[in-house]
Amino acid sequence: MAESVRILGFAGSLRRGSYNRALLRAAQGLAPEGMTIEIFDLVEVPLYNADVEAQGDPPGVAAFKQAIRAADGLLMVTPEYNHGVPGVMKNAVDWASRPPQDAVLARKPVGLLGASPGMTGSARGQSQLRQAFEFTNSYCMPQPEVLVARAHEKFDAEGKLTDETTAKFLGTWLVAFQAWVLRFKAA
Amino acid sequence: MAESVRILGFAGSLRRGSYNRALLRAAQGLAPEGMTIEIFDLVEVPLYNADVEAQGDPPGVAAFKQAIRAADGLLMVTPEYNHGVPGVMKNAVDWASRPPQDAVLARKPVGLLGASPGMTGSARGQSQLRQAFEFTNSYCMPQPEVLVARAHEKFDAEGKLTDETTAKFLGTWLVAFQAWVLRFKAA
Amino acid sequence: MAESVRILGFAGSLRRGSYNRALLRAAQGLAPEGMTIEIFDLVEVPLYNADVEAQGDPPGVAAFKQAIRAADGLLMVTPEYNHGVPGVMKNAVDWASRPPQDAVLARKPVGLLGASPGMTGSARGQSQLRQAFEFTNSYCMPQPEVLVARAHEKFDAEGKLTDETTAKFLGTWLVAFQAWVLRFKAA
Amino acid sequence: MAESVRILGFAGSLRRGSYNRALLRAAQGLAPEGMTIEIFDLVEVPLYNADVEAQGDPPGVAAFKQAIRAADGLLMVTPEYNHGVPGVMKNAVDWASRPPQDAVLARKPVGLLGASPGMTGSARGQSQLRQAFEFTNSYCMPQPEVLVARAHEKFDAEGKLTDETTAKFLGTWLVAFQAWVLRFKAA
Repeated sequence: MAESVRILGFAGSLRRGSYNRALLRAAQGLAPEGMTIEIFDLVEVPLYNADVEAQGDPPGVAAFKQAIRAADGLLMVTPEYNHGVPGVMKNAVDWASRPPQDAVLARKPVGLLGASPGMTGSARGQSQLRQAFEFTNSYCMPQPEVLVARAHEKFDAEGKLTDETTAKFLGTWLVAFQAWVLRFKAA
Repeated sequence: MAESVRILGFAGSLRRGSYNRALLRAAQGLAPEGMTIEIFDLVEVPLYNADVEAQGDPPGVAAFKQAIRAADGLLMVTPEYNHGVPGVMKNAVDWASRPPQDAVLARKPVGLLGASPGMTGSARGQSQLRQAFEFTNSYCMPQPEVLVARAHEKFDAEGKLTDETTAKFLGTWLVAFQAWVLRFKAA
Repeated sequence: MAESVRILGFAGSLRRGSYNRALLRAAQGLAPEGMTIEIFDLVEVPLYNADVEAQGDPPGVAAFKQAIRAADGLLMVTPEYNHGVPGVMKNAVDWASRPPQDAVLARKPVGLLGASPGMTGSARGQSQLRQAFEFTNSYCMPQPEVLVARAHEKFDAEGKLTDETTAKFLGTWLVAFQAWVLRFKAA
Repeated sequence: MAESVRILGFAGSLRRGSYNRALLRAAQGLAPEGMTIEIFDLVEVPLYNADVEAQGDPPGVAAFKQAIRAADGLLMVTPEYNHGVPGVMKNAVDWASRPPQDAVLARKPVGLLGASPGMTGSARGQSQLRQAFEFTNSYCMPQPEVLVARAHEKFDAEGKLTDETTAKFLGTWLVAFQAWVLRFKAA
């Protein structure tokens, strides 16, 4: 019997109707047996400010770090803004990388997903985000990669993933991610 | 007589004692004749949220866009966090890139500076930030580049730039940036 | 009457039937009045080796640098290999950036195009290539960008661009690039 | 008793007196018990050309792929040219990523080192190179990182690493890399 894995997922868009939030919910629904995905809303994480941090982590940040600590792996779902990672997503990583709990990102397995209305499916946003893990010492799964292009054609008005090809590939990806997380959990 | 240029400067750190904020103030003090540098504090710019934006730009964002519009060029001073651009800085660019005033970044000359306590002087942070300008269609000066490494040795306790070599190079850089901005203003 | 501009174009693939070579030829054929595009074949540029360089530039490199020097602007057409710029293209830039003629890339206007069989149209290859120009001090046009995705559907068996939408957009892009080059030529 | 690991090392500079080649030799000499480092010289790998490849891998490429296949992990030592990975290094990765032996890079553990005469120690070169492994599905160790800055002060005229701090850190790094490789070998 496969060991179970607890995943913390968060999306780099704060918009309620975001395709990336919808993609995260779709992943939650498609999680294979033995994997649970809890969703954290980055709206709780303020802009990084070291003067604020010096007074103690704000409640949203403390909750975010605690949720990361409790997870076996992280699922980050990111749009691409201006050829890069959204400030909202990078800001969350910036907070999570900081002491006194700097260990929360270190040696943590990470999986990336992303969606965009255009053709590139957040490719450049994902590439920039990966660069952060070089420093935080997180283990980001290199392949397979999920680039959901033309996202407006793949979700319905309620944000449900309706494109079967994407759903099937996402299911396959989740199984690969489960194995990736287990590889490091076992070690 | 040289035409005058108005520069809007902002730093990617919200910490009061930030080396990057100190570097921006140093640039302000060293601005050559014919260049003025106004400083905008990114603490006024909230996390990007398209649902909020749909209700109208928050006051800090409206002020930020207006200040960009009024400037002949932008001076961005950025730390490097986690091998990349800080979320705080990218978030400001994300807001500024958005309609209804999407023209505020387009064809705007940009200069980059950066400081870090380590050896690389924010090199990777600057490289990521430049990628945004590919999309916003801003004109970022490629050279010379200013990477202030070991920043803690170059500013005093009050945040005054005390390293003469750095100050001299910054002065030279500002003259080059002035010419860069004028090149596009004239066009 | 518009001043004429001389462009040197080269593609980052050595394959005869390359979509990127075909895209470069298409650009050559669509060049607006007042722009000529000469093509240089990178097969003449060997792998960079500083020991070889110390004996004098190999003939292909000398010819490449001379062609760059004689041009008003550079048109680089690049595939994406392994999420980045092909070694063949980067190697050519590495040679061109070197003394004794290091000025050949400095202040030279650059335009990028790219094609790929996949969906992203060489987006990440182009982004990496742009980073070189930060150092060489070349002026790379930020927008518009041309990402020819699903290239196999847009060229015929002889490598002729048959997709009308792409051809039209390429024509528009060339006019923008002409203006970009003239902006710096005039200065 | 620790399981032994076979590492294939190669440097991204063809210059005989290269600091990066010297750094690779230093690593070879400092390899911990249970690790052997074989060096492959990239001078044997020609520029990538798919038409040539269609006739069969050239002997240098076949040897390179075979050496990769036989290794438990790869040690890549890269300079930074023009803010990025040298064409010579990327070209080698481009060949290695190709069929009919595309599995040679997949799931292969990778460690990066780099040296430069400047302050940034090849930081941007390493970051670009890492992006390739997203696609090749190689497992690149995120931390610790080795950025040998001011390399001319750290090697003697014969290319021997004389800086004790660097040597000690390199030794520590090699032990971490050994554990990284074993983690995947065991799996």
